[in-house]
Amino acid sequence: MQLCRVEGTVISTRKHPSFNGWRFLICQPLDCDGRADGIPVVALDSLGAGIHQKVVVTSDGLAARRAVGDDLSPARMMTIAIVDEAEKEISRSEGATTA
Amino acid sequence: MQLCRVEGTVISTRKHPSFNGWRFLICQPLDCDGRADGIPVVALDSLGAGIHQKVVVTSDGLAARRAVGDDLSPARMMTIAIVDEAEKEISRSEGATTA
Amino acid sequence: MQLCRVEGTVISTRKHPSFNGWRFLICQPLDCDGRADGIPVVALDSLGAGIHQKVVVTSDGLAARRAVGDDLSPARMMTIAIVDEAEKEISRSEGATTA
Amino acid sequence: MQLCRVEGTVISTRKHPSFNGWRFLICQPLDCDGRADGIPVVALDSLGAGIHQKVVVTSDGLAARRAVGDDLSPARMMTIAIVDEAEKEISRSEGATTA
Amino acid sequence: MQLCRVEGTVISTRKHPSFNGWRFLICQPLDCDGRADGIPVVALDSLGAGIHQKVVVTSDGLAARRAVGDDLSPARMMTIAIVDEAEKEISRSEGATTA
Repeated sequence: MQLCRVEGTVISTRKHPSFNGWRFLICQPLDCDGRADGIPVVALDSLGAGIHQKVVVTSDGLAARRAVGDDLSPARMMTIAIVDEAEKEISRSEGATTA
Repeated sequence: MQLCRVEGTVISTRKHPSFNGWRFLICQPLDCDGRADGIPVVALDSLGAGIHQKVVVTSDGLAARRAVGDDLSPARMMTIAIVDEAEKEISRSEGATTA
Repeated sequence: MQLCRVEGTVISTRKHPSFNGWRFLICQPLDCDGRADGIPVVALDSLGAGIHQKVVVTSDGLAARRAVGDDLSPARMMTIAIVDEAEKEISRSEGATTA
Repeated sequence: MQLCRVEGTVISTRKHPSFNGWRFLICQPLDCDGRADGIPVVALDSLGAGIHQKVVVTSDGLAARRAVGDDLSPARMMTIAIVDEAEKEISRSEGATTA
Repeated sequence: MQLCRVEGTVISTRKHPSFNGWRFLICQPLDCDGRADGIPVVALDSLGAGIHQKVVVTSDGLAARRAVGDDLSPARMMTIAIVDEAEKEISRSEGATTA
């Protein structure tokens, strides 16, 4: 599961039929400071995310197939949470254990 | 699932029999601006993609095995959409929530 | 499974219902010297980890779904150990075999 | 599935018994121009590949377990095709659609 | 499956109960020349590997769960071979086919 920012959408006419009616989001992984880092993934928009919103994306194929309602779907990635806040705590002391 | 551009094909005589009749595409992952980023993957051409077309590729093994019609196939990656348009929205304000 | 340090949390109101009551941790992978390396992952906090603690994170979807008690959950990553100590042994001779 | 070049072999006496009689290949992923890119993987040699041959490698665990004939095997990667030719098409125009 | 060198161990008191009695190894992936490359993984020590030994690590979750004898375990990575020798063949001619 990765913290990503929605950067755009993919429009596709020719696709696997299980994706009809679904929106593909281009999701850019972020580092702990909210900067783009790594290659974007394409995820199904299961929660109605907006452009530039932060989301959590999963790569759990089983859940994605169930979300589209087709056990034969090649779906693998989808949004599972829209982020209100993703806070990096300022490090006070490395290795501090507060749990 | 990744946004990729088809860069070429792999010709193979000696291969797992489940791939007979299938075309292997060399698919280059792209960043949000459409530039090559990361290591290419080899995907089954399930939709008849052309060279230099943009596609979405999945790594869902279950679906790939079903696509080739052989539950014993080592297939793992295939194209699941041919992209008409992949648009990166121009950022107006970071963290804007429009959903 | 990866050695990570907990860097923060993700707050989300709109999320898959299987995550209600669960805390999402932003976990930064570490190299052998304990320095940040690679893109952070988001993991379920199954053990009550504190900020800046080191943890081991798994990507085993089956176990994550069982942890949240919902076989339809898109959960994929969770903490599986809180690290007391992660010691890199000082190399005496490359390739030494002591097992 | 990745396009790789076989760079060497791994010799191991102490290993999971399901690998007895199997050859481990060190396979270097390649970029679209055939240059080494990324970390090598270790794959079972299911097709009798030679050193410096190009191969396609899968990470489909189910198929690898079946290949070694042991459903309890930790096998995960194996060669699935020996490459005769992997041709990158020279780009004429970005985004050209010829399918 | 990846060629790695064991760099250290992880000591953990609070962990999933399926890991009781198991040793976690910090395993550094290696490139074709035996140099560290990429982020370390944490693997179960199924074969009694020594510090600085080279090992092959799998990410096959099914096999790892069976190794620890708990189908509910979040285990995902373990050592599957201890390497006697990992030899990179000196390249004579690119693309030579000797199989």
